[in-house]
Amino acid sequence: MRIIDSIFMIILFLNVGIISGGDDQQKEIKKKYDAFLKADDLDVWMRRLTAHPHHVGSPWDKSNAEFIKSQFQSWGFDTRIEEFYVLFPTPKIRQLEMTSPVIFTASLTESPLKEDVTSGQVEEQLPSYNIYSADGDVTAELVYANYGIPKDYEILAENGIDVKGKIVIVRYGGSWRGVKPKVAAEHGAAGCIIYSDPKEDGYYQGDVYPAGPFRNETSVQRGSVADVSVYSGDPLTPFVGALKDAKRLDIKDAATLTKIPVLPISYGDALPLLRSMSGPVAPDEWRGALPITYHLGPGKTTVHLKLEFNWEIKPIYDVISVMKGSEFPDEWIIRGNHHDAWVNGADDPISGQVAMMEEAKSIGGLIESGWKPKRTLVYCAWDGEEPGLLGSTEWVETHADELKEKGVVYINSDGNGRGFLSVGGSHTLQNFINNISREVIDPEKNITVYERNRAKLLLKGSPDQKKNAQEKKDFHIGALGSGSDYTPFMQHIGIASMNIGFGGEDEGGSYHSIYDSYDHYTRFGDPGFKYGIALAQFCGHAIIDLAGDDILPFRFSDFAEEVNLYLREIIALLDDMRDKTSLQNKLIDEKIFIEYSDPLKKYFPPKAEKPVPYINFAPLQNAVLRVRQSAENYSAALNSFRSEGKIFPAGKKDSLNSLLIKTERALTSAKGLPGRPWYIHQIYAPGLYTGYGVKTLPGVREAIEMRNWNEAASEIGITAQNIDAFASLIDQAVTLLKSE
Amino acid sequence: MRIIDSIFMIILFLNVGIISGGDDQQKEIKKKYDAFLKADDLDVWMRRLTAHPHHVGSPWDKSNAEFIKSQFQSWGFDTRIEEFYVLFPTPKIRQLEMTSPVIFTASLTESPLKEDVTSGQVEEQLPSYNIYSADGDVTAELVYANYGIPKDYEILAENGIDVKGKIVIVRYGGSWRGVKPKVAAEHGAAGCIIYSDPKEDGYYQGDVYPAGPFRNETSVQRGSVADVSVYSGDPLTPFVGALKDAKRLDIKDAATLTKIPVLPISYGDALPLLRSMSGPVAPDEWRGALPITYHLGPGKTTVHLKLEFNWEIKPIYDVISVMKGSEFPDEWIIRGNHHDAWVNGADDPISGQVAMMEEAKSIGGLIESGWKPKRTLVYCAWDGEEPGLLGSTEWVETHADELKEKGVVYINSDGNGRGFLSVGGSHTLQNFINNISREVIDPEKNITVYERNRAKLLLKGSPDQKKNAQEKKDFHIGALGSGSDYTPFMQHIGIASMNIGFGGEDEGGSYHSIYDSYDHYTRFGDPGFKYGIALAQFCGHAIIDLAGDDILPFRFSDFAEEVNLYLREIIALLDDMRDKTSLQNKLIDEKIFIEYSDPLKKYFPPKAEKPVPYINFAPLQNAVLRVRQSAENYSAALNSFRSEGKIFPAGKKDSLNSLLIKTERALTSAKGLPGRPWYIHQIYAPGLYTGYGVKTLPGVREAIEMRNWNEAASEIGITAQNIDAFASLIDQAVTLLKSE
Repeated sequence: MRIIDSIFMIILFLNVGIISGGDDQQKEIKKKYDAFLKADDLDVWMRRLTAHPHHVGSPWDKSNAEFIKSQFQSWGFDTRIEEFYVLFPTPKIRQLEMTSPVIFTASLTESPLKEDVTSGQVEEQLPSYNIYSADGDVTAELVYANYGIPKDYEILAENGIDVKGKIVIVRYGGSWRGVKPKVAAEHGAAGCIIYSDPKEDGYYQGDVYPAGPFRNETSVQRGSVADVSVYSGDPLTPFVGALKDAKRLDIKDAATLTKIPVLPISYGDALPLLRSMSGPVAPDEWRGALPITYHLGPGKTTVHLKLEFNWEIKPIYDVISVMKGSEFPDEWIIRGNHHDAWVNGADDPISGQVAMMEEAKSIGGLIESGWKPKRTLVYCAWDGEEPGLLGSTEWVETHADELKEKGVVYINSDGNGRGFLSVGGSHTLQNFINNISREVIDPEKNITVYERNRAKLLLKGSPDQKKNAQEKKDFHIGALGSGSDYTPFMQHIGIASMNIGFGGEDEGGSYHSIYDSYDHYTRFGDPGFKYGIALAQFCGHAIIDLAGDDILPFRFSDFAEEVNLYLREIIALLDDMRDKTSLQNKLIDEKIFIEYSDPLKKYFPPKAEKPVPYINFAPLQNAVLRVRQSAENYSAALNSFRSEGKIFPAGKKDSLNSLLIKTERALTSAKGLPGRPWYIHQIYAPGLYTGYGVKTLPGVREAIEMRNWNEAASEIGITAQNIDAFASLIDQAVTLLKSE
Repeated sequence: MRIIDSIFMIILFLNVGIISGGDDQQKEIKKKYDAFLKADDLDVWMRRLTAHPHHVGSPWDKSNAEFIKSQFQSWGFDTRIEEFYVLFPTPKIRQLEMTSPVIFTASLTESPLKEDVTSGQVEEQLPSYNIYSADGDVTAELVYANYGIPKDYEILAENGIDVKGKIVIVRYGGSWRGVKPKVAAEHGAAGCIIYSDPKEDGYYQGDVYPAGPFRNETSVQRGSVADVSVYSGDPLTPFVGALKDAKRLDIKDAATLTKIPVLPISYGDALPLLRSMSGPVAPDEWRGALPITYHLGPGKTTVHLKLEFNWEIKPIYDVISVMKGSEFPDEWIIRGNHHDAWVNGADDPISGQVAMMEEAKSIGGLIESGWKPKRTLVYCAWDGEEPGLLGSTEWVETHADELKEKGVVYINSDGNGRGFLSVGGSHTLQNFINNISREVIDPEKNITVYERNRAKLLLKGSPDQKKNAQEKKDFHIGALGSGSDYTPFMQHIGIASMNIGFGGEDEGGSYHSIYDSYDHYTRFGDPGFKYGIALAQFCGHAIIDLAGDDILPFRFSDFAEEVNLYLREIIALLDDMRDKTSLQNKLIDEKIFIEYSDPLKKYFPPKAEKPVPYINFAPLQNAVLRVRQSAENYSAALNSFRSEGKIFPAGKKDSLNSLLIKTERALTSAKGLPGRPWYIHQIYAPGLYTGYGVKTLPGVREAIEMRNWNEAASEIGITAQNIDAFASLIDQAVTLLKSE
């Protein structure tokens, strides 16, 4: 009877969503909040913050931190700057030449444009490079390896091409950039060049800058190549804050640095290299939009790559602003966006930073007018995100114990633009996010952000998404891998996190170049800062609810259903691997690959794999079964608690919220993931070979993908324990709710 | 009992295929035949036939016809040249200029190459043009319309772009070329330019000529733009042979000529035009491989297109060679390949022509050594295929009555290259073709052609094809639309036809250019003519069986199963249209397209369509049910006739074969397809908007696609009658078999 009732209510929730505080009082506060928001502020602040290049170690980086600090202070926050000391190498020598079949020297220089005022600040700009590349001086034949991910090397092998001792040239895309030199080095390459192909990032996409927003032929994507899948933050201080006197690793022992030299270049510099290459013609999916035949090499094309860096320790400046909670001061709602950039960084990160500032200003205004956040608010303007989430990671590592105790939710943003809401995060917050999206109006369409998103899903979604959208259910939020400052919070500490931004209609290719400027952003990113205001409104409403709701707005049933989906995906993955391996082995055995192949081309058929066994998923299946029931029970208990108009005594409220806060922590394991103890979340992690890209149930999934069956079995057990612990906390919360 | 038995036998047939004459005597004959085949012949003949441009009206066209005639005569055939007089316009004026925003004059000239001897025969070459384009002199803004097929104009409309009075530029691909100016004219365009984009046909595919086989920047694809979906052959003499004194239409009344001027150009000539364009950025799938942002226009780019033609009547020369049958002289096995080319035409058509000649030479050798074909062989070297199947069509129209009486099978080829067997045709011949493919050895892999094809299907096939291949069943042959000389035979007369060639490893882009030469073909097409010999062997074996088998090797169950699939496809198509229309109307009604659209871009949402009704498919379903049973009965009866070792009296054999011959004829209707009475086959036709591309059950399918529900119902009735008539003939054959 109870089960049927609660299932009914779940369905009701899915359609209406009543857990989070949509009551009249909250509505009134949000209306007041909205009245504080002013687009002009964003414009003024962006102009100031992007006036000069402001990478780690630059004068403007520090100046911006101080400016942000003074602003937060003026809005009533208790603000301090926390300093850390991090490894931040900068280029001493960058050389790339083709030595055969023709001589060519890459310019490695982006052209200043008269249409873009700050692009001419050449003296202050960091040159284009990939931070955390190894030093090196290598001359070798060139091989084109597509995106440089593992399966690309399988294709090279089928063509009889070994990259040992060669320099590989790969294009951006298909994975996070740090994966490219990592995989190249694993295959024995001596060096790695990464270029932006105009197919993904240039004229193929649209008119190039300054005529249009897209990447032009001199523009280079800078960026970190640290192996963030092992740990984020300062390469020399994993697990501990990079304080002045912290114990540091030797550079040679830092696991996140690349093993080989790696350099990013423009498509203008890449064209002569790629045009000169010989060898087999690249497969169809490997071909970009340069006006050439793409060849795999190796052969007549030889290049010389020389890189040397100043391996220096630099200070970074996190601006931390606190507003103490009136009722639950030890429950922290944390909000962050970084302030450092690769160059002037108008889009990345200042468009997000100024929206967060506008939000803080308006929260300050609310408080001045009498509103009191029940929970403590912590606003963080991070430094050193670009090299590898340094500011956030070092801060989290420094305050880990306190954060484990008090961290409720972390809300991140990292740039913003015109278009659709994009949210990733912990699925316990899925319904909460959906409810906010039903409150905020799309500034250009005059419908709610939810409706706008629904229109997109109805037209472009997967069949499942279309069905959900037709029924006006909550949209699914994505799981988070890495790539911004939520990583240390969620994956190293276990704090429920969200990453929020608008985008999709702010096309362009200024990313990590000198053209990510105020001029570019205000023409193509978000003219008039309408979506900047929408982001401030969206996150502000979330903060108001999170700070004001008596009971924290987690809905566990969403999480339970999502994990159930992941588990089914993994079981299907294993079955699919088994069928495919068996079929492939049969085809290899019957020489079908050889029979099919063109006798005039070199071809090496794939090798047989061991058969894929069956694995015992029962522990995980049972844990998921249990958590689905617990989550339903919680929804039912909460609903009847509320519908009966019950009120908590103060102490019990604390106990309940403290249980709820612990749930995300329960999903972390003591030992961490196999081979990377820094990552302790058993549900979400960046992939070892996708970089930023998420792997859900990562311990189990990656063990299976790597055909490590014993590890898969052991990770099934560990993850099942986590989910059981999670369910136990929910069960305790149910007991508490019913005891009143 | 009978049904179960016959089903069992069907399955047996599918796996072994015993209908066609695989007996020892035939094997011996084929072995003898194979011994006659010599690759050197093909080389010598190709050198001779491609020595000069040999388009319709050229001296070398006539000279080639006479050479071919003399060869066939030397092999013992009774050979004559049949002349027809056809409309063959050639260019007087070709002009294409961009007049704004910059002046540019297209060169419209292919560059001679020292690496290609015949490419320098400039005086003898036809300039690059699209034959049967209208005269015209227009200046207008340019619009890019992708492939120029109907759905491309829907996308333009969504962007608010109307091509009325504009000149459209479209790329080759996505449909037959003649569809492009037809659809452009239907939308009111004033002119049409067709270019070869390097994505489909140029450096994107591989190294360009002369370094590699692909199309270079000056190379142009010539070709006909006659609307072959209405009728093939001379535009002025539909339905009748274009004899000297035939009654001719006025040029203005010829339905297959284009309404607007149309000109093909190289990507070298297209680049300046496309680069200059403005307007919305083209959708992703519309973008080619030129190093530009593709824009839709219209706007600042204006072009001037002027075309004038000499509208002359020219003679064409079909070379018809007959070898009388010893036992069934009035049953004709017809074999053809054209000899005319756009320029030197080594690949298209001479690679097929020389294989056919080698086949005829060897058949002649067999006959000289004592073998007697029971049926009459008719070898045809067609002229005027390139402008629109003129030679074959005029011959078929001239001899229609005799052909309807005597035509058993038509086997076509039209060029050949390295690689895999490719066959399309009447599905009554599917098993026959499969059996031949199990006899012929792939010359480079030393496995049978069947095994080679199976390897391809196992690796690259659809799930169904993979399954079939795993079970070593017959592979499916494709249905035929148009594009070569089988069209008049199959679709205007109803003679079971096949189109056969090897290819897939003979990559390149010489098609219809001055580079389709002996030099190009012997480097990249089929070096050593190994696959030319394989084609001669394949078709020769087919001829030996068709000429020698007592009972013609049709298997009706393959046809019945295939038609059943087509019918199910169409029913699913209608259901799908109904669901999609209903959903689309709902989305339009709820303004979802508007909600989704980017407010900064012009956007016009699609318009609602009338709901899609249910249609009565029962007549066709019942006809298909009946023919499946009749076909099974025939297989069973034939099998038991053979297994009991029965022998026919001569007269009965004639009666049986004469019934079998009539079956394909039974699939034709008196009135022809809606709006195009020349096309009378109710199962296969070229699509009205796909050109060469086939539509199966075309009357029904196209009526549904065009939402003409009444016509669909009436075509269901007509097609059901055809299939019933087909079944009746099979039933008579069963009765005949059992009566012995």
